[in-house]
Amino acid sequence: MHALKVTRAEDFPEWYQAVVREADLAEQSPTRGCMIIKAWGMGLWERFVAEMDGRIRATGHENYYFPLLIPLSFFAKEAEHVEGFAKEMAVVTHHRLKQIDGELKPDPDAELAEPLIIRPTSETIIGDAFSRWIKSYRDLPLKLNQWANVMRWEMRTRMFLRTAEFLWQEGHTAHVDEADAMEETMLALEIYRSVIEEVMAIPVVLGEKSENERFPGAERTYSLEAMMQDGKALQAGTSHYLGTHFAEAQNIRYQDKDGGMQLAHTTSWGSTTRLIGAMVMVHGDDDGLRTPPAMAPKQIVIVPMLRDKPEDGELKEYCASLAKELNKQSVFDNHLRAWVDTKDAKPTDKRWDWVRRGAPIICEIGPRDAAGGQVTFIQRTALREGEKVKSTSLAREEFVAQAPALLEAIQKQLFEEAKQRLNDNIRADLKSWDALVSYYGAGEDESDVRGWVRVAWSKPSGAELEKVGERLKALKLTIRNAPLKQPSSFDACVFTGKPGVEEILIARAY
Amino acid sequence: MHALKVTRAEDFPEWYQAVVREADLAEQSPTRGCMIIKAWGMGLWERFVAEMDGRIRATGHENYYFPLLIPLSFFAKEAEHVEGFAKEMAVVTHHRLKQIDGELKPDPDAELAEPLIIRPTSETIIGDAFSRWIKSYRDLPLKLNQWANVMRWEMRTRMFLRTAEFLWQEGHTAHVDEADAMEETMLALEIYRSVIEEVMAIPVVLGEKSENERFPGAERTYSLEAMMQDGKALQAGTSHYLGTHFAEAQNIRYQDKDGGMQLAHTTSWGSTTRLIGAMVMVHGDDDGLRTPPAMAPKQIVIVPMLRDKPEDGELKEYCASLAKELNKQSVFDNHLRAWVDTKDAKPTDKRWDWVRRGAPIICEIGPRDAAGGQVTFIQRTALREGEKVKSTSLAREEFVAQAPALLEAIQKQLFEEAKQRLNDNIRADLKSWDALVSYYGAGEDESDVRGWVRVAWSKPSGAELEKVGERLKALKLTIRNAPLKQPSSFDACVFTGKPGVEEILIARAY
Repeated sequence: MHALKVTRAEDFPEWYQAVVREADLAEQSPTRGCMIIKAWGMGLWERFVAEMDGRIRATGHENYYFPLLIPLSFFAKEAEHVEGFAKEMAVVTHHRLKQIDGELKPDPDAELAEPLIIRPTSETIIGDAFSRWIKSYRDLPLKLNQWANVMRWEMRTRMFLRTAEFLWQEGHTAHVDEADAMEETMLALEIYRSVIEEVMAIPVVLGEKSENERFPGAERTYSLEAMMQDGKALQAGTSHYLGTHFAEAQNIRYQDKDGGMQLAHTTSWGSTTRLIGAMVMVHGDDDGLRTPPAMAPKQIVIVPMLRDKPEDGELKEYCASLAKELNKQSVFDNHLRAWVDTKDAKPTDKRWDWVRRGAPIICEIGPRDAAGGQVTFIQRTALREGEKVKSTSLAREEFVAQAPALLEAIQKQLFEEAKQRLNDNIRADLKSWDALVSYYGAGEDESDVRGWVRVAWSKPSGAELEKVGERLKALKLTIRNAPLKQPSSFDACVFTGKPGVEEILIARAY
Repeated sequence: MHALKVTRAEDFPEWYQAVVREADLAEQSPTRGCMIIKAWGMGLWERFVAEMDGRIRATGHENYYFPLLIPLSFFAKEAEHVEGFAKEMAVVTHHRLKQIDGELKPDPDAELAEPLIIRPTSETIIGDAFSRWIKSYRDLPLKLNQWANVMRWEMRTRMFLRTAEFLWQEGHTAHVDEADAMEETMLALEIYRSVIEEVMAIPVVLGEKSENERFPGAERTYSLEAMMQDGKALQAGTSHYLGTHFAEAQNIRYQDKDGGMQLAHTTSWGSTTRLIGAMVMVHGDDDGLRTPPAMAPKQIVIVPMLRDKPEDGELKEYCASLAKELNKQSVFDNHLRAWVDTKDAKPTDKRWDWVRRGAPIICEIGPRDAAGGQVTFIQRTALREGEKVKSTSLAREEFVAQAPALLEAIQKQLFEEAKQRLNDNIRADLKSWDALVSYYGAGEDESDVRGWVRVAWSKPSGAELEKVGERLKALKLTIRNAPLKQPSSFDACVFTGKPGVEEILIARAY
């Protein structure tokens, strides 16, 4: 018996939707392809924002806010960029509604001279500002970040993983030269690694994207790839060195120390609400989400076992003072977050609500606990002993004193479990195309866990790379990235038979 | 001599634009009617968000996120509401662009079956969710909040004060009855008062809006009105009791304790980036903004007087350790925020940049300060002594120890100065329409400071109120609100001559 009606083994995609729904993360909205992010889901995103924002600021970036709507003509400037995005943009064409024949319609008299695009990303409008703000080498580096909603029209959507509107952070920087811009590109990647691994407890592989998987208009794109429990990969963040492409298209030039005019080198990097989906697919189990304590909006939820009896008042007081005491503790360089659930609902319903949401520690406090000065609790990552829910009782002082260490241990456990899974599911022993075909082809269907494969290749480009892409596509595979950590020698390329020059990761992906 | 080229006395609107520009708050964007919020402006908004969000959560609200785009049909449900907003909405009609005759255009094959509206506010889509989420009295109250961007097409825009896109917080709640919903409406008003008065140091008058100034679809609207230095009013926040209007239109019903079905009573309340504009017009002077310390992203800015000499290293170290020591201090129930400006620019340029941005305390540290263990600083609210900039030197330990108290004193000073101005500029002695006409009519032009007038009225409604509105409009006046604090007896109504039933504030407004 589990808290969800469907298990991972039965139907992974269905299980994912069930967790998103039952853990109060999000639901489909009446607006096609867009979701409503609910309280626990938003709480997770806000924790992510706080951790990410702190690191972004600490490394010298400042937050700005640019318009939601971008004039259409801005997209015409960078050809590759528009090619990559034009197919999926929401277009504003009117600025007023009118009753026409008893129906509310866009007012034909209020058509915009130039349509406006809801930003799919902000390189174009931020680059335009850069061209005005940057005059001299003294203005560089210019390092800014924006927290915003963006929109990319998608035909098939899945909550958090692929939605028409999503929330994200986009960093945009300009530098004097390639070396400085590349340092920034790798700094952003390290910021992402730190939050994703250390806060979200999701192990990732850092590497460079292949030419055909680059951001439209980028010179080099780096990604962090995470492994879901079904063995598929999810791109957890990207950082782009844009070279001087956008600077040329948008005229971002600066006067150097010798008085000459130079093109700036720019970067951009983004991380999105899809990471919440990744967290579900990495840490969830058949009882719902298991939230890493560093991410949990509420780390310890205290449920008083109220019975509509006179002793309820005392019980509530005991719980409130316990929460207060816990909140004075520090954990993960922050205050501990404990909270008493006094909602008007049955205690067992509350227990299972918090199990599904994945509160790391759930205290269930009855009159006997209050009278005896103890705390009875469930640890979400050790929910059951055999078939039964396992609860532990500790003297109150002991529980309070141990709580930070327990939360830290849970955090570590979740990361190590995921890290182990990642390591166990990357095969490096498939050295030929046929071996690849028989490995991935043997799956009953796409949802079979097959994990990733690490192979050497000759790094083809252009038409040759396109052919490789098509061969992989037939197996529903993509190149994820070329990991930053590379061996010193390589096998022959599995695609071309030519000498290998680097190793890449191949996987099915979200 | 002042740091801005235009003074308040010369041209208040021009002065306002100069502060916004020169204090690094915002600039016009290439998207019509939208602004780019720059680093210091965004820093202020983020401080506002942190303070407001903390209070909203502490009073039992949870953050959600609803879609940016709302289906057109949702607006057709509440007639008054659509009447109020339909005239100024951005309409998305296409989801793809296409090259047509060499020009990038909305793809005719990608026209949406139903147009989507960029939210001007979210009552309609949140009400729709409420109707699904609320089943029983146990689900009430439902109290949620959203931080979001919204869009209202505006013909004449002014940075922060009136922009097509703006950032805001919108609270939406549902309750069992009027009493509970009204308690919430007033709670939101008190949250606003607390942040606006205690953090932004802007004194406000709380009161109820007249019937013709209500939110479209509301039963009662309450506002907080602030006075700018030109005597005009600015609505600093609103809180609406929506009665059962939206519940009826959207079918928000719950089962009560006896099993009967009841309509929920809803509220909504919002506060926006226009408050940053209000802060400028309340606290700015002819040298730029004076940021209240509780709002300042950086409360103490330390400028090392670097000279490209060997002793620069020591100087930087001294400043860094001073900042570190200051940051360990507490002020306004928070860590003190000190920061060293090591940007590659002349120290005097930096001084004036920080004066214009209104950093409360600007330390200018030279080699002699470092050697002598002292701190030389400027206080933004006591910038000059006669014509000269006034700096003070203190022993380092003394400065560090006194810094929190000094910041608190500056905060208090700014509030009291504004409070005095508010009190001094509300006339309560104009007891007839003729007196009003001669008072406001006597101004050379609209920009003359005339302040507000408090008069009694008979609270007309319908056509009679409309007539009052027209008479006021001829003098460019509006009714701001009926203050919550009312006397026990009233003069005759200045408009109708009938017995007065309440006092209202009349003013020119932003």
